[in-house]
Amino acid sequence: MTVELTFLPSATVLEVPIGTTILEAATRAGLDIPAPCGGQGRCGRCKVQVQKGNVEQPENAHLAAEEHRQGYVLACQARVLSSSTIVLPDELPLEQVLSGVGVTDLAALAPACDWQHDATVRSFYVECQAPSLADNTNDLDRLRRALLHQHGVSDVSIDLSLLRVLPQRLRSQDWQVTVILEPLREGYRLVDVIPGRRERMYGVAVDIGTTTVKLFLVDLSSSKVLDSASAYNAQIARGEDVISRIIYSLKPGGLEHLRRLALKTINQLLFEVAERQDIDPQEIESISLAGNTTMTQLFLGINPQYIRQEPYLPTMLHPPQLNAGEIGIEINPNAPVYCAPSVGAYVGGDIVSGVLSSGIYATEQLTLFIDVGTNGEIVLGNSDWLIACACSAGPAFEGAGVHCGMRATEGAIEEVIIDGRTHEPTCRVIGGGTPQGICGSGLISTLAEMFITGVVDKAGRIQPNPDNERVREGEHGREYVLFWGQDERPDIVLTEVDINNLMRAKGAIYAGFSILLSSLELDFSLVDQILIAGGFGQYINIEKAIQIGLLPDLPWEKFRYLGNTSLLGAYQTLLCQQMRYLANEAAAKMTYLELSADNRFMQEYTSALFLPHTDLEAFPSVKALLEL
Amino acid sequence: MTVELTFLPSATVLEVPIGTTILEAATRAGLDIPAPCGGQGRCGRCKVQVQKGNVEQPENAHLAAEEHRQGYVLACQARVLSSSTIVLPDELPLEQVLSGVGVTDLAALAPACDWQHDATVRSFYVECQAPSLADNTNDLDRLRRALLHQHGVSDVSIDLSLLRVLPQRLRSQDWQVTVILEPLREGYRLVDVIPGRRERMYGVAVDIGTTTVKLFLVDLSSSKVLDSASAYNAQIARGEDVISRIIYSLKPGGLEHLRRLALKTINQLLFEVAERQDIDPQEIESISLAGNTTMTQLFLGINPQYIRQEPYLPTMLHPPQLNAGEIGIEINPNAPVYCAPSVGAYVGGDIVSGVLSSGIYATEQLTLFIDVGTNGEIVLGNSDWLIACACSAGPAFEGAGVHCGMRATEGAIEEVIIDGRTHEPTCRVIGGGTPQGICGSGLISTLAEMFITGVVDKAGRIQPNPDNERVREGEHGREYVLFWGQDERPDIVLTEVDINNLMRAKGAIYAGFSILLSSLELDFSLVDQILIAGGFGQYINIEKAIQIGLLPDLPWEKFRYLGNTSLLGAYQTLLCQQMRYLANEAAAKMTYLELSADNRFMQEYTSALFLPHTDLEAFPSVKALLEL
Repeated sequence: MTVELTFLPSATVLEVPIGTTILEAATRAGLDIPAPCGGQGRCGRCKVQVQKGNVEQPENAHLAAEEHRQGYVLACQARVLSSSTIVLPDELPLEQVLSGVGVTDLAALAPACDWQHDATVRSFYVECQAPSLADNTNDLDRLRRALLHQHGVSDVSIDLSLLRVLPQRLRSQDWQVTVILEPLREGYRLVDVIPGRRERMYGVAVDIGTTTVKLFLVDLSSSKVLDSASAYNAQIARGEDVISRIIYSLKPGGLEHLRRLALKTINQLLFEVAERQDIDPQEIESISLAGNTTMTQLFLGINPQYIRQEPYLPTMLHPPQLNAGEIGIEINPNAPVYCAPSVGAYVGGDIVSGVLSSGIYATEQLTLFIDVGTNGEIVLGNSDWLIACACSAGPAFEGAGVHCGMRATEGAIEEVIIDGRTHEPTCRVIGGGTPQGICGSGLISTLAEMFITGVVDKAGRIQPNPDNERVREGEHGREYVLFWGQDERPDIVLTEVDINNLMRAKGAIYAGFSILLSSLELDFSLVDQILIAGGFGQYINIEKAIQIGLLPDLPWEKFRYLGNTSLLGAYQTLLCQQMRYLANEAAAKMTYLELSADNRFMQEYTSALFLPHTDLEAFPSVKALLEL
Repeated sequence: MTVELTFLPSATVLEVPIGTTILEAATRAGLDIPAPCGGQGRCGRCKVQVQKGNVEQPENAHLAAEEHRQGYVLACQARVLSSSTIVLPDELPLEQVLSGVGVTDLAALAPACDWQHDATVRSFYVECQAPSLADNTNDLDRLRRALLHQHGVSDVSIDLSLLRVLPQRLRSQDWQVTVILEPLREGYRLVDVIPGRRERMYGVAVDIGTTTVKLFLVDLSSSKVLDSASAYNAQIARGEDVISRIIYSLKPGGLEHLRRLALKTINQLLFEVAERQDIDPQEIESISLAGNTTMTQLFLGINPQYIRQEPYLPTMLHPPQLNAGEIGIEINPNAPVYCAPSVGAYVGGDIVSGVLSSGIYATEQLTLFIDVGTNGEIVLGNSDWLIACACSAGPAFEGAGVHCGMRATEGAIEEVIIDGRTHEPTCRVIGGGTPQGICGSGLISTLAEMFITGVVDKAGRIQPNPDNERVREGEHGREYVLFWGQDERPDIVLTEVDINNLMRAKGAIYAGFSILLSSLELDFSLVDQILIAGGFGQYINIEKAIQIGLLPDLPWEKFRYLGNTSLLGAYQTLLCQQMRYLANEAAAKMTYLELSADNRFMQEYTSALFLPHTDLEAFPSVKALLEL
């Protein structure tokens, strides 16, 4: 029996079976409600308001009495009993966009980012005097003179490509132009000269991920994020992780091919948002990018081979100031291109950008920051000091290198519950349809449930069980069947080989945590907060991640999901000069610990190659659960 | 009857008729003896030494008694009577190269150009520490660290193209490299990183003339000019003068076509000298160019149309700092490109460069500087002040726009003597063969002789003379036959139309002189020296130029030929940062007088449209000659 649900403000209507959770219904309707705890009712982030209708939900500590009265429920817990109208949070204003990606307090950012007065590009409307025989100053100096007289701006340099169009630009609207300037260490550089008066000025912030490229289109005159877009990095076709990309780049023409693929991805996203917002890409006057060290070098066409070879050297940490035209970004060719600085071979601009936007560099709290993407990078520290390392977690948590793995898209099993008695699994699938494979959060969930229910032992071995047809010998060794294939499609299984891959990945990350702490003679108990960033972080279930020993066994309230901190940092450095200084400062402050050079890492790693860990005492909550 | 002449040091041998002048013989042998007075025995610059043989020459005030004893003769006056051996001056050392183009005193240049310590690019040999896990600083910072420790150099920036090759360059000779740096206002820019130790460092200085492009290849470590080359500017095919080039540039694709033609010319010259000197063009680390305002804009691909339209505006006076790769010059793509600054639409970088190298900007003498090329530019002033103008002399003095005109190459009539009684001409032809046409100096010479002998009157009208078959009515009006065409080739004539063209050209230049002087309430008698620059200047005969009223009637000793001052200025700004500051200073100091905006110019011009001038009193030497 179905009921009709109406979601406001979008007025989306759909039919769902009675008892469906609001979160599930919203997901089916293509609406996005943040549910970082994975729908466990634990984070309290998925509050929605029931305007009309009958909705049932268990009691929940995340809702204040006042909120209860106003009809607020947690979307993940509340089940619809009758046709209802549900109000989703408004499209987030900028403040909430920021807080939604982990910056809880915009005021804390403000002093560091006075974007109105410390902008990376500035716009000036200028009326030049028309020339005459008595006043035959050349075009460029005429413009400079007007800038000085009308805006007090001096020492303005120009690039050749802009000089080539300057005469026409000045004359086409009777010597009235809007001038875009980039402040330099000394003076300014002309970025654009636009005939007539133009108020609009756009910029883009880009996160070049190994797997996914994400982009914000920003109105630079208001700092508002107008639109966003994301797509797979087209380089994926040439390797899933940075190492395989580096290997590909060494083939003849490989480097240039990868450079073009990344460029194509970015240009397509630019075209997409520009078209949707009905703007000319030439009106985009500034771009800020953040990516890991290899992505940055590949995008700039700089040979990354020495990143991979001991002693693991990037070519540079601070990419030079570039123009869009110089590297093929299809916006105003004179637009300045800013790339976030790296710290080392495997701690790149994406992490510096994340450290910036997450505010670690400014907090007094001892913070453990982890960005789990194709690689796992960890930063430990606070406003006084920062130490960072990278663990080659591999792409297992992105579904790669796992037999039935897939990315977190429609059809992916994202959560599994295994019955402790029958060992029968219940799968939640993104989009709700027939499962096609298992994504990262599904893998964590599956492994945790298999461990807790005894399907695998602490060494990751699947226990033989003749009574359970789901445990069997497969082509790749012993495996557990999560879903019986239908219509000649193969069964979805998790093999012992997959489990080994996952354990190596989680072991590497946990060892990274341990090493960073022990290298400073600290331990987990001293950590005030754990910030989880990365596309992956949005879907991870902390309880399950602790159960397999991926995350340390700390109180849940110490964990916070930040989302794409790299993109947010790129957004900040797009807007504000001061944020670039702070990025440099943060990068300079970060000590890079090269784990492959550290014997202790191998010990920690080996210890972490168990579920949850060789030292069960380090995981008291898991120990308690196992004892139950 | 012929004799055998041997020229040393090249040991060139050739046979010539008895009585041939040494200058003529040397010219036939392809050897270059400077003879700026046009072989009149008046400048004393063509001294050569007779080592063996019998040579006859009239007495000459230019040779000291000691020189006589040592066998020195003036090549233009001395005629060989027997087989002889003649010693030409050695290949000129730098001091004489400089003095040969007008800088009489190298010491006067020295304080302004300390090229060893104020070089535009500098070379450093660096040994970087090999990296290790314990010292895993990235490539760029490793290089910077070594530069700081070994040479005290800091604040070094890098361009993308060099970053792309940096890893390989550093590693190919075990982290030992030669680094070329360009000093900036603040810090340095990396121009090149060369594996191992390399002492050589080359630069090129270029004069981009409307008609001819000339180039010096310079050893930047010694400042020595290693080689030179010149070629017609390939743009000639699209117009003889700047105006026709500007018109062509407005056609679809015209600007880009002209840009490529200039670039092709320069690249071919570069290739030529590099091949001859057996160097890789990639070893050329710096380039300095001087050209008029239109040539500079065309070369940079900047629309020059507003240079031609009232109020005659260039796009800019100071071209931005560029890299060779950015504009297609085929040397090290990171090599800095310096273009001399302009003063106005028709007083360009070539004139600023000439003002620099001729030393006007530093002399106390009141100087009139004229550069006669396709256009005529005049500068008046001294170390305190400078005023400049351009007269659209047109290309008549380069042989264009004249019926039988041609450039000063083989086959051109370069001097004419007309018998005062018979009106029969005697022609001297470049290369000595059959005349093909008349070049600039030949035109001046012909017109002067026609005037002095009464073939034309002071209005430039050819006088009817039924007794002289050389005066006749031709297809283009009345004309004077200089040479009877042989083998069905047409006669070589000077028509009244040609004479009008020449008179307009010489009238414009003389009016320019007058206006500059009168605008400051000065007159010719106060002028201490007249410096004549430009390719044209090397061949002009001052006596004849005064007779037609092209040059003012001042004592010959006040005239000096400087040759290509634009190229010499480019050579100076190639070597030395300080010369660039001085060029900017000279350009800033020059007041640009736009003649087309000046009514007095039309008056002066009209007055100058006579031979030599309406005011014969201004030309006392000519008056005396006419009275004879």
